[in-house]
Order: sequence, then C-alpha cells, then structure tokens
Amino acid sequence: MSFTAPSREQNFVLKHIANIGALAEHERFADASEDMVEAIVEGIGQFAAGEFAPINRTGDTVGAKWDSGKVTTPPGFREAYQQFVDGGWASIDGPEEFGGQGLPYSLSALILETCGAANFAFTLCPMLSFGAVEAIHAHGSNDQKAAFLPKMISGEWTGTMNLTEPQAGSDVGALRATADPISEGEHAGKYKIKGQKIYITFGEHDLTDNIIHLVLARTPGAPEGTRGISLFIVPKFHLDADGNPGAPNDVTCVSIEHKIGIHGSPTCVMAYGENDDCIGEMIGDEFGGMKAMFTMMNNARINVGSQGVQIGERATQQAIMFAMDRVQSARAGSGSKDPVAIIEHPDVRRMLLRSKALTQAARALLYYATSHVDQATLDIEGAKSRAEILTPLIKGYGTDVGNEVASIGVQVHGGMGFIEETGAGQHFRDARIAPIYEGTNGIQAADLVGRKLGLDGGDAMMALITDIKAEAQDEDALMLLAGACEDIANWMASGDASIDDRLAGSYPFMTMLATATCGMLMKKQHRIAKAELADGNDPFLKAKLVTTRYYLDHLVPEVMGLKAAAMGGADILYTLSSDELAA
Amino acid sequence: MSFTAPSREQNFVLKHIANIGALAEHERFADASEDMVEAIVEGIGQFAAGEFAPINRTGDTVGAKWDSGKVTTPPGFREAYQQFVDGGWASIDGPEEFGGQGLPYSLSALILETCGAANFAFTLCPMLSFGAVEAIHAHGSNDQKAAFLPKMISGEWTGTMNLTEPQAGSDVGALRATADPISEGEHAGKYKIKGQKIYITFGEHDLTDNIIHLVLARTPGAPEGTRGISLFIVPKFHLDADGNPGAPNDVTCVSIEHKIGIHGSPTCVMAYGENDDCIGEMIGDEFGGMKAMFTMMNNARINVGSQGVQIGERATQQAIMFAMDRVQSARAGSGSKDPVAIIEHPDVRRMLLRSKALTQAARALLYYATSHVDQATLDIEGAKSRAEILTPLIKGYGTDVGNEVASIGVQVHGGMGFIEETGAGQHFRDARIAPIYEGTNGIQAADLVGRKLGLDGGDAMMALITDIKAEAQDEDALMLLAGACEDIANWMASGDASIDDRLAGSYPFMTMLATATCGMLMKKQHRIAKAELADGNDPFLKAKLVTTRYYLDHLVPEVMGLKAAAMGGADILYTLSSDELAA
Repeated sequence: MSFTAPSREQNFVLKHIANIGALAEHERFADASEDMVEAIVEGIGQFAAGEFAPINRTGDTVGAKWDSGKVTTPPGFREAYQQFVDGGWASIDGPEEFGGQGLPYSLSALILETCGAANFAFTLCPMLSFGAVEAIHAHGSNDQKAAFLPKMISGEWTGTMNLTEPQAGSDVGALRATADPISEGEHAGKYKIKGQKIYITFGEHDLTDNIIHLVLARTPGAPEGTRGISLFIVPKFHLDADGNPGAPNDVTCVSIEHKIGIHGSPTCVMAYGENDDCIGEMIGDEFGGMKAMFTMMNNARINVGSQGVQIGERATQQAIMFAMDRVQSARAGSGSKDPVAIIEHPDVRRMLLRSKALTQAARALLYYATSHVDQATLDIEGAKSRAEILTPLIKGYGTDVGNEVASIGVQVHGGMGFIEETGAGQHFRDARIAPIYEGTNGIQAADLVGRKLGLDGGDAMMALITDIKAEAQDEDALMLLAGACEDIANWMASGDASIDDRLAGSYPFMTMLATATCGMLMKKQHRIAKAELADGNDPFLKAKLVTTRYYLDHLVPEVMGLKAAAMGGADILYTLSSDELAA
Repeated sequence: MSFTAPSREQNFVLKHIANIGALAEHERFADASEDMVEAIVEGIGQFAAGEFAPINRTGDTVGAKWDSGKVTTPPGFREAYQQFVDGGWASIDGPEEFGGQGLPYSLSALILETCGAANFAFTLCPMLSFGAVEAIHAHGSNDQKAAFLPKMISGEWTGTMNLTEPQAGSDVGALRATADPISEGEHAGKYKIKGQKIYITFGEHDLTDNIIHLVLARTPGAPEGTRGISLFIVPKFHLDADGNPGAPNDVTCVSIEHKIGIHGSPTCVMAYGENDDCIGEMIGDEFGGMKAMFTMMNNARINVGSQGVQIGERATQQAIMFAMDRVQSARAGSGSKDPVAIIEHPDVRRMLLRSKALTQAARALLYYATSHVDQATLDIEGAKSRAEILTPLIKGYGTDVGNEVASIGVQVHGGMGFIEETGAGQHFRDARIAPIYEGTNGIQAADLVGRKLGLDGGDAMMALITDIKAEAQDEDALMLLAGACEDIANWMASGDASIDDRLAGSYPFMTMLATATCGMLMKKQHRIAKAELADGNDPFLKAKLVTTRYYLDHLVPEVMGLKAAAMGGADILYTLSSDELAA
C-alpha cells in the first residue's frame, strides 16, 4: 500500500491546463515561477508519500477516539501534522502580510490533492483550516485578522466550519443556534453563542493548542431563513493579552460519529454555550453569515471535488500494483497455459485504464477550476463566471469519479478487495462521504441548472460549450456531446422547461457537461502530448496519449446515453404521489 | 429500519415473468398451484420481516466471532435459524424422496430473495446449503444421498462449498488440496483430505449439529488444471452408525476474515487434515469435480444475482422511508416557503424512482432466469440455453444494480447516510461483495462473450434478441438497444473480432444485453399492468406503470452510450505494456 505522488502528471496538468505560467506573469503571482512550482510539486509529493501515506491505514483501523470531551487522533497524526506545519505546507496561498506565501490557490489545491491522496481523512484538517483562513481574511476586521490569521496560516492553530444542525443540513436557513450581544464587561461587543452543531470536521483534536471555530448563528430578532444568519469566530481557548491561548471557552465536543469511512477524521457534535458562557465575536456584517460562508464554501466545494481525484489516484495506484503482482489464469487465446499477472487480462486492463482515464480527467477539471479561481483573483474577464460553473462540476463529477474508481479498485482485487487488510476497502469507504458533504451532489446539480445556467444571462454557459466545441474539432463523439449539452442548456433556459423539469434533468446534465469539459481538457492534453512526443519515446507522454484517447473514445460517448434523462422532464417523477411511490 | 416484503410485486412477477402457472401445469411441479405460491410468498414475507430483519443490524455491529476454532454467530441468529428450519423454508425445492417439497427452483429462489432482503449476510447460510444439496442430489451415490440429504434438506445440517485457495481464486484449476485414497481400515474406499481453503462462507458456526463441506481436491497423479479436480464430502463430524454426528473430523476453522461488510456471515479459512486425519468421500466421478461444482455454481450465480435484488429492495425501502420523514427546504418554484419532506424534491424523487425501477428490473431478470431453470428441468425446448445466457446477466447486472441502489440509498440520507447508526451504510458495505464472489462480474462477462455467445451455434443469443425485439414493438429506445446488442453479438461472433476484442467489450456488452432483457421484461409488465388497470385505481398497478415507463425511458437509453466501448476493440488496452500502464 505504498504511494507515489504523480508529480510528472501534476506538473504537466499544472502547466497545460491550469496554465500556471500565465498566472506567474502577473505581479500578484510572480512568485509562482516554473522552478518554484516544480519544487512545490516535488516537495509535497515526497512529503505526502513519506509522512502522510504511512499512517493512512492506522488512521482507519485505530481511528480518532473520543473520551470525556477530548479527541485523540490516531497514532502518528500529531507528529505528521507538526511536520506539515514545519514544512510550511499550511501557508502556501495565505496572504503574505500574515505570514502566508501568497501563491496561487491552484498550488494550495495541489497541496491538498497530494496530501489527500496519501491520507484522505487526515487532510480534511488542513482543508477546513484553509477555508477558515479564507473567510477570516475576506470578512474579518483588521484586529481579527491580526489576532487569528498568522497562527492559522502557519498551521499552529486549525479552523473549523460550523453550519449543520440536526434539523438544518442542506437547508442551512433552518439553523437555530443563537448569538446574543454582550453589552457589558470584558466581552462587551461580543456575543454569547448557544447551540449544537453536528458534522464538525476536526471540531476537536489534539494536534494544536487552539482551534478556531467559525459558527453560523442568529442574533436576536434576526429574520427567518438564510437572510438572518451571521458568522462568529469562537476560539476553543480565549486569547490572552499576548494573543496566546488562555482560558477555555464554553465549547465542548459532545461526541464523535461512527462512520462508514474517514475514521481518522473526527466528525464532531459540538455544544456551544452549555454553561451559558460561550463567547464569540461577529465576523463581517450582521446577517452577512451566508455570504461569508459562501466565500469559503466555493473553494471548499472545489476542494471536495479534489477528494475524488485523491481517492481515484490512490485507489488506481493500489489496484495497478495488485494487478501486476497477482498471478491468475492463462491469457485467453494466447496459446500458453501459463498463468499471467492479472493486469494482462483484457477486462482487468479495461478497469485499470478506465480508472486512470477517469482520475486524470477529474484532475484536469480540478486544475481547470482552480486556475479560473486564480484568474478571477486577477480580475481576468470571464474567469469568475467560468469558475462558478466549474465548481459544481468538479464537486459533483469529481466525487462521483472518486467513488467509481475506488469501487473498481476493490473489484480488481477480487475476493481480497473485500478483506479490510488489503486497504482497497478503506478507499471505497472513505470515498463515499465526498458526494455528500459540502452540498450533496444533488445540490450541486441544482446549483448548476439554477444559478449557474443563467450566469451573465446564459452567456457564461454558452462560452464554456463554445470552448469545448472549439477544442473538439474532429472528435466526433465530443462534438456530439457538446451539442447535446447545448441542446439541454437551451431547453432548460427556455420557457418550455419548468423549474421541476430542470431539476429533474439536473444530475444527468451535470454528468454530461462535466464529461464534455473533461473531454475538452483531455483532448487538449492529447494534442500537446502528441506534439511533445514527436518521435521520442517518453513513457509519460506515451501513456498520456492512451489515457486521453481512452477517455475520448469510451467515456465521452458513454454519457450521451444520459440525454434522454436530462430532457425527460419532471412529469414521470410526479405521476405518483409520495405515498404511492412509497407503497 | 423496518422491512416489509414486497409480496404483491413478487406475486405479480412470479405470475407474469416467471410464468409460474405454466410450470404448475406440469406433473413435476403440480404442487405449485396459484394458492400454494401465494401462500409461500405471503408466508416467507412475514417470516423474513418478523424473524430475519430485526437481527440484520446486530449481525453487522456484533458480527460473527471466532475463538479457538469456534465461531459464534451474532445474537439471535441461532433462534432465527431454528425458526427457519421449523417453518420448513429450507426444504422448498429439495427432492421429495428425501423430505423436500419438490417445488420449482423459482420458489426456493424466492425464499432466498425474501430472507436476503431482510438479512443479507445471514441468508448466505441457507443459500450455500441449497447449493450443496443440489450437488449431492445430482452427483451423489444412493448411500450418500440417503446419509446426507434428509438432514440437509430439512436444514438440520448446513452445507458449504470449498473451492478457493490463496493461489487459486478465479483460476480454480490452480488449487492444490489433495485427496489420498485410503485402502484399509474403517475408512477404506474413502480419502484423506489435506489442504487449506479460504473464503468459506459459514464454514464454521454454531447454528447446527453438523456441517457438510464439499471440497475440491486432487487425487494422486491427477492431471494439472481443472481436469484433475475431484469433489469430496467432508463432514465436520463423522456420522455414527445411526447416521448422527459422531467423532469430529480433522477440519478446523483457522480464522475468519475481517471484511467490508456481511459481518454476520463468517468467512472462514478452513484447514483440512492438519493432523493427517481428515476423512472425505468422493462424490461423483474422479476428475468430475468441476462438473459437479458447476451444477451448484450455475444456480449459485443466479442466487448471488438475487442478492442484488435483495439489497436493492432493502436499501430502496429504507431510502423511501427516510425521504418521507426528513423535512428539509421548501420545494423550488412552489411559491411556498414551508419546508417539505425531501421525497418532494425532484432529484430525490429521481433517485428513488431510479432505485425502484432498477430493483424491479433486476427482480424481473431474476425470475425470468429461475423460470428458465425450471423449464429446463422440464426439458422445455430452448430453456436450458436461455437459462445459461441469463445466468451471467443476472449475476453481473443484478449485483451491479444492488451496488448502485445501495449507494443511492446512502446518498438519499445525506450526511446521516454516512453515519453507521442509520443502517444505510450497512447495505452499501454488504452489497459490495456480490459483484466479486461466485465468479467476479468480469468472469461473468467473459463467460457471456465466450461460451454463451456461441451456444447452439449462436442461435440461443439471437433467439433472446429476437424475443426482445418482439416485445419492444413501438418502444424506440428498446428497439434501438436490441439492435445494438445484435450488432455487437454479430461482430463478436465474426472473424473481425479477436478473443481480446471480445473480452475488451465484454463488460459493456453484458450491461447492455442485461438492460435490453430487463427492458423487454419491464415492457411486458407495463403492458399487462395497463390492461389489468383498465379504468381501476389499483395503486400497485399504477406504480408499476410508472416504474416500468421510467426504466424504458431513462435506463434503457442510458446504456446505449456503452456501444462504443463494447465495440472499441482491445488495441487501446494493449498500446501500453503493463509496466507503462503502471508507470
């Protein structure tokens, strides 16, 4: 179960899909020189393989443990986290004025991708912290930034995100946690926070001296729904006069969940203000909570999409290693009766090539998305809208790919895949959360056909489809798929499709559009690899030609079959009443 | 997590797809009258819901335990097994001369389907026993039948199937267990068995007084490969003079596996002859082991396909119950701001209707397969070949459906789906084994494009496709899919496709042909439901119209996208060497 970071592939995709070189031409990202980028790719690859990968399995078997409010992370996590901080990996894209390196988001995404492939569950901790840093940086006051960002950017403290309550999951607006203003005493101007939050990733742990919770709550008299929500900073320990962790705040981890996977990541039930003494400070404007949350949520969604790439990479590597090693049966029609490694059998090869192609396609989509976030930071025209369209695509499709590839990984192992000791099962179980959290994939699909379809009056969507067509050229299947996406988008945007019709077709449309976008990116890589390869024999480029060709010839036509469902309308879904459906 | 057997649906499909009435017209199955069938459906439904379902979750959380060679089944399993035996459910299709009820296989498959939906892991025990009975009945001597069948048919003893060794999984011919003839003493004429077997389902347990192991092994000087394998009966306890369990045989359960799912089913590592004193008797001819194994394996494959239906039914029921209960967000575009049960949201409904349609389609395919097994028993023309084609289809597609539906079930639950307490995760984990054991789905696909494509000179395949077309009539998508299957079958059978090409396209072809067959069966049900419904308002028939229509309009066109992969050929798989693919 060793792991090797796919550095060559990452560099290739960073260069040609994320267009990292173009980013570095801008003052803001001038530090992201080609040498720097390659050093980061190489460095994080070695770090992840050396420090994070070896404790992935223990993270699963031992898991995070809760006892009387304390959470102990699995053996090795504390040391590895310290290494992560010491290596400066936590601070890649943090703002320079607070100790960050100011590099593009594409590179912090790369850090998470690489670490997460090595250790999916553990990497949730920095992932959530990155989001919290982002929110404080975007919405915090100067005092708040000065107090919290330096230690969060260094990784000395971690951050969390507290939205969900038992009755408020996808429906964030239903949350009931309260924040009462304090008018007197040492905490005047701050708020008393009260409420229970669930599914809080690394809400409590033993990795750092402090944990900075970002908590959504309602001030007195706040409007119903999402419009009445504000965001609060609630540190686990109050900061003393020197800014160091002092007295404990009234925040308790009540329990941690018993989950299908990601056992290394404590998923906490958090109680705020059980003793009426939980103090938080508002961040951003009153009622600006959702806006602030969305600042972190957009990138968080991309980062969860990345988790699909992560588990895809890890599961594919493991399946290939197994298939190289496992000898079983002679090759049919070979004439020889000698058994061969199963990687020689056609259907095993199909599974492995499919896994590679899907993972690489999802990676290309990921980098394409992150690069547009960076371009949006640079105010490059159209970049923001493109990033907004790509966000549900990478979250939805990326995590679906992760699940499929992890399941294929189990299958390649045969009976051994079902035995936990092999480790293939861990990937399969870990992967399952990604289509759920950070907005279920159904929510992503709804976002795509709701808000994103109409961005810039629909121009943003058509611009993407136009780009796909331009790259497709003589790829008939991709051109056909792009055309189908255009038909669906036009139908959905027209008066012919009701809101229900759009939502009924949203998931198949999301899969089709994501595949078409990946098709474009795979075609581009195919073109470039072909040119770079020329008469040479670079094995990486040779393999890239095959995986991209496989994606274009097999995966792209496959999703054309979804068009009927995408345009099937909602009537069939509502012919039966709920009771009749349940009968 | 309550469970209700889908009795009405089962009766409908037994009647119209398994054509159970026509079977009863034959002397051999005369007992399977309409009343009897309905009584069995009703009875097993109540039994499974009352006795097996309530201990499903404990089976997962406590699991089977191994200690010093003994296996303790989870709490409640012993009592429930006794109820199963007392109710006569073990003996449905066993031969009457040995105490069985002589009913069609379709009904014993129904028993397994219903019990397995209630308790997937537990039902593996009777499932394996049914197979062992079949093998002994088909290949045993009169003495062997008399000694073992009555108590196995009643369920007083259980049976196991021992093929796999660490180096011999899909490649059964690589097995090394040995059987040395004993020429003198009380066991003269029998064999000393020696070897280790793995993945032995219910190889050891505390449910019954004896366990009858069927073990594949090699006699001295036997030819290499599958041609040199013989089958042996190896009881856990020797039978005494009265035929009751006496002295222990030299058979030990060395350990049980730690698995992703089916924790209630002990998956045993079995050691035969560690003290050189394991005695077995040959069943059938020397070197006839594979033939005997295939007797049980064909139906075992159908029974594993049934597990897809089982988990699909259970997961769908649970997802629907959750979706009826869970209130979250207002319905988009409804004008109201009141939150609704999530079953009202279009994409949730899509997931539920998809789950229902897939499960019902797999059930139809299952009953269609079992009825052809029964028709083959009656020597009805063409039935045997049809059953042989349907076997890989129900095993492969049925178990893929089970996995997809179980995964959808998790998704419908949102965050709660990932928490073990909900139980959705158990279905997801349990389901994962079914595409692996009893011949991986890749092996099924190979069987389909290998042996099955050429059955009766190819006529058997064309007969199925002709039947699909005849039912399709004005269903354009189904007609198109049937045509695509025909194209692929013709290409594969032609000289244009190499063995590698066939195998490269085998899996997508299997999915397409299974879907086309299900399309035919769903169309037939649609037609019948429509006629029966007339102007009435029977909710079952109304729902059947919708699920069948959904399958025909959404699922059938979806798999058309696989044609490119089915006919893509093997070249792309072998462009890279194994090392290059691994790089």
